[in-house]
Amino acid sequence: MVSRTDVVVAARRIAGRVHRTPVLTSRTIDAMLGAEIHFKCENQQRAGAFKIRGATNAVRSLPADTEVVATHSSGNHGAALALAAAEAGLQAIIVVPRDARASKRVAIERYGAEIVTCEPTLAAREAALEAVCRRTGATFVPPYDDERIIAGAGTAALEFLEDCPDLEQIWVPVGGGGLAAGTVVAAGGSAEVILAEPAMACDAKASLTTGVLRDALPPKTIADGLRTALGKRNFEILYNARTPVCLASEEGIRGWTERVAEIMKIVIEPSAAVALAAMAEHRDTATGRVGVILSGGNAPLKAA
Amino acid sequence: MVSRTDVVVAARRIAGRVHRTPVLTSRTIDAMLGAEIHFKCENQQRAGAFKIRGATNAVRSLPADTEVVATHSSGNHGAALALAAAEAGLQAIIVVPRDARASKRVAIERYGAEIVTCEPTLAAREAALEAVCRRTGATFVPPYDDERIIAGAGTAALEFLEDCPDLEQIWVPVGGGGLAAGTVVAAGGSAEVILAEPAMACDAKASLTTGVLRDALPPKTIADGLRTALGKRNFEILYNARTPVCLASEEGIRGWTERVAEIMKIVIEPSAAVALAAMAEHRDTATGRVGVILSGGNAPLKAA
Repeated sequence: MVSRTDVVVAARRIAGRVHRTPVLTSRTIDAMLGAEIHFKCENQQRAGAFKIRGATNAVRSLPADTEVVATHSSGNHGAALALAAAEAGLQAIIVVPRDARASKRVAIERYGAEIVTCEPTLAAREAALEAVCRRTGATFVPPYDDERIIAGAGTAALEFLEDCPDLEQIWVPVGGGGLAAGTVVAAGGSAEVILAEPAMACDAKASLTTGVLRDALPPKTIADGLRTALGKRNFEILYNARTPVCLASEEGIRGWTERVAEIMKIVIEPSAAVALAAMAEHRDTATGRVGVILSGGNAPLKAA
Repeated sequence: MVSRTDVVVAARRIAGRVHRTPVLTSRTIDAMLGAEIHFKCENQQRAGAFKIRGATNAVRSLPADTEVVATHSSGNHGAALALAAAEAGLQAIIVVPRDARASKRVAIERYGAEIVTCEPTLAAREAALEAVCRRTGATFVPPYDDERIIAGAGTAALEFLEDCPDLEQIWVPVGGGGLAAGTVVAAGGSAEVILAEPAMACDAKASLTTGVLRDALPPKTIADGLRTALGKRNFEILYNARTPVCLASEEGIRGWTERVAEIMKIVIEPSAAVALAAMAEHRDTATGRVGVILSGGNAPLKAA
């Protein structure tokens, strides 16, 4: 199991290699949602998402003779691993499902990684990755079901609670559960962690309600970072902590992505808007001093 | 004429009532444009644009018995005056051309001002405003052709040069010329000021090249904040300083609006992207340490 100490050690390991992202507030959004919300801006993180935290923690924990790393990713973890590997002098190979956003592919290529395209199912991703590792001797750095990744992701909440020590809740989106589990571990009960999930990808809610880990639903939500099922380690941490899940509609997710841009003048990806959509659709769940981790900003917005 | 001292006095007058906006950098954009660019983020200013600086300076300079202020505005100045007036306990009436962005109307209403709609020509705006002032006794606070507005707008460059004292150039968009003239006055020759204008609204370039103040072109550019002609005072300041103007295409303006969102994760309106588009279309004009004032962020972006 990942401990809070692992998160603290990860924070030390990645210090100076990732941004300490700013915390923003918006009186307009507070008035709309009836809470005092603090936004941890991982959309402004290096490579545009919190994922660089786990990727850097994992890459910097590898044996010294490692030369190649590989992963499968719909985007943000792939770009993050590409960047973390390049900075550590390693080669990276990223297996990308063919329905991934073009902008996320571009980011992966920008950091000098090799892309291998596959079908958009977990089975296809795992098969393609296995072939890559067999062919190249690459070390697999998983996107979320990994203790180094969970501890690295938890560093966002660690910073958040340093900057805003009296948060009563922290809302995070849940897909594979790296950020979710990392936040639960980092918070250590000092703030209630509430997960937000697209209703169209509500496998985490089903898993955590029943205690049985479910498969992913068809990958249809606009929140493309949240289409995967929970990882095993992630599920264990979240289930043991009895972490609640709040669902959000597609319309709400799209609306809050645009509303945050309009009101706060910052770009977030739909996956990062799920917490706000869930709050708006479950009034009175978010109360008092509330933290929201804006998980990433890697989605194109069009000038209207 | 507006002096640098007027800008310094304005800065003192508006301190605490407007944000000292952050300065951001982007290595990716630097590499694309071949300069070391510093971005003064007036898109994250109160009411979403630099306009609150001049509006606050003007409102806080009015005689104590003033009760109502009025202006005409395609949007940002109107919202700024609405906010500045509300905070000073004054009523505001804003004449808005019917082609103004809906989002800008919403902002004006949010701050409690009354809206009067008119045709989208300068003549119609002025006629409607005159009627308002006659009917209500309102004091006109002009959008740009006003010494208090120019001095207030200049405070952005004043802060910028405090934070980045060795800027060699400052690029600003030019419409009515409030920000442009204020920046020229504030810089006082310590940095070269370069204006950026949509090619489809190139009246400022024509005016400053020929020395004869031209009328506005048909209001067709996507950069809706820059559709007006230069004000007389603004023209005088800019012409006396021999301020150069660099033009930008519509495609460039739209592209850089989206590119800034994608790369920097911040929302800017098309008017604020004109400087980057102009730089990209006139390579080698921007060199060394370059400042860009991102003038505003009040435009809707759509989730793709």
